[in-house]
Amino acid sequence: MKDAVRAGFERTPLIEGEEIISRLGWRYAVKGFDPDRRVSERDWKLLEQAAILAPSSYGLQPFRIIVISDRDMKERLAPACYNQPQVRDCSHLVFFAARKEFTEQHIKEFLELTMEVRGTPAEDLSGLAEALENTRANLEKNGLTKAWAQRQTYISLGFLLETAALLGVDACPMEGFVPEQVDKILGLEEYTATVMCALGYRTGSDWLAPLKKVRFPADTIVTRI
Amino acid sequence: MKDAVRAGFERTPLIEGEEIISRLGWRYAVKGFDPDRRVSERDWKLLEQAAILAPSSYGLQPFRIIVISDRDMKERLAPACYNQPQVRDCSHLVFFAARKEFTEQHIKEFLELTMEVRGTPAEDLSGLAEALENTRANLEKNGLTKAWAQRQTYISLGFLLETAALLGVDACPMEGFVPEQVDKILGLEEYTATVMCALGYRTGSDWLAPLKKVRFPADTIVTRI
Repeated sequence: MKDAVRAGFERTPLIEGEEIISRLGWRYAVKGFDPDRRVSERDWKLLEQAAILAPSSYGLQPFRIIVISDRDMKERLAPACYNQPQVRDCSHLVFFAARKEFTEQHIKEFLELTMEVRGTPAEDLSGLAEALENTRANLEKNGLTKAWAQRQTYISLGFLLETAALLGVDACPMEGFVPEQVDKILGLEEYTATVMCALGYRTGSDWLAPLKKVRFPADTIVTRI
Repeated sequence: MKDAVRAGFERTPLIEGEEIISRLGWRYAVKGFDPDRRVSERDWKLLEQAAILAPSSYGLQPFRIIVISDRDMKERLAPACYNQPQVRDCSHLVFFAARKEFTEQHIKEFLELTMEVRGTPAEDLSGLAEALENTRANLEKNGLTKAWAQRQTYISLGFLLETAALLGVDACPMEGFVPEQVDKILGLEEYTATVMCALGYRTGSDWLAPLKKVRFPADTIVTRI
């Protein structure tokens, strides 16, 4: 039985790993997007799904993802993003906005969702409920909720970026914006804009495109024990 | 000419997007690793490459990746990780450790590397050098270097996790450890352990494996404008 179950869980590589690496090497932080090309509805849906499927602390997803394709809104946001051309020229602009407070209500909703999706009785979740409340109380007491929630958004950003590369969609992750201004324009109150990502298609004239990727040698980044 | 260059940059989807999403749904935070199964050398090399190819602020890679496959070291680390079984049973345990200080030396090394890899003359990098120094001074002045560096590690974690899923390798990202203790055991001084990830293969008996993935409904996470 154990072997049968295990076999059912196994997966072979979906594609050759070398092809994934080659595609991740093709990816770069695009500065010049073609303003006339849009990411298709189908691809966009997949990209959103990948971002949502990223793991987060306890699976709590303490963030929102704001997707802007409206030209007027991109225009309004540009000055709060130091007028970087990617903001106006990209197909879709994404803000990951982290929760500023960790409320008891969030835990309640998460536990209710878990009961609903998995059919788990409430009493089986009492240990989890306690762990979540301890984590919440600690983060709130030490003023660490925002930093914790912000870190989680970067995993989701990672999934968005890798999936985009695999689909042949270009992207540029950016921290260069004024969060207070972006929050105000987007009407964010319980959340704060943490990192943004422009997506679309590179132009042939982006001077950065043909340049080699710069990475420190692996042995200065990785230690093996 | 422009069209020719652009065509050269274009990429079609490497695989069907639906397959990527399906594989990201297969992924879950494995608690029960098979202690007798190891990730192959080939797959491990690919996973490290994916983590290194992740983007970071300015491409500065302000972190180290510590990979532990040695059983004795995993045994020593386990108590600092609340004795979670994944630490001992996984094939490879990875710590992402963020830089605590942003030094002028780091900028110098990054600019030298850029000149070497791209053959860019020093004078062409003067604008970048200035921007880096401004960023460095601001982060240091406001005591934000560590938080900034820590966020970058989560993008790399995201690339590691998604690539693992595509290769059929199981993983469990974890924040549950005592950084001070882990730093001491690993001899980290300029860096601090930020997030860890166990990798290997799930057992058939992990009770979490057959459970449905819990995610808030897309429309409570994503706002489209």
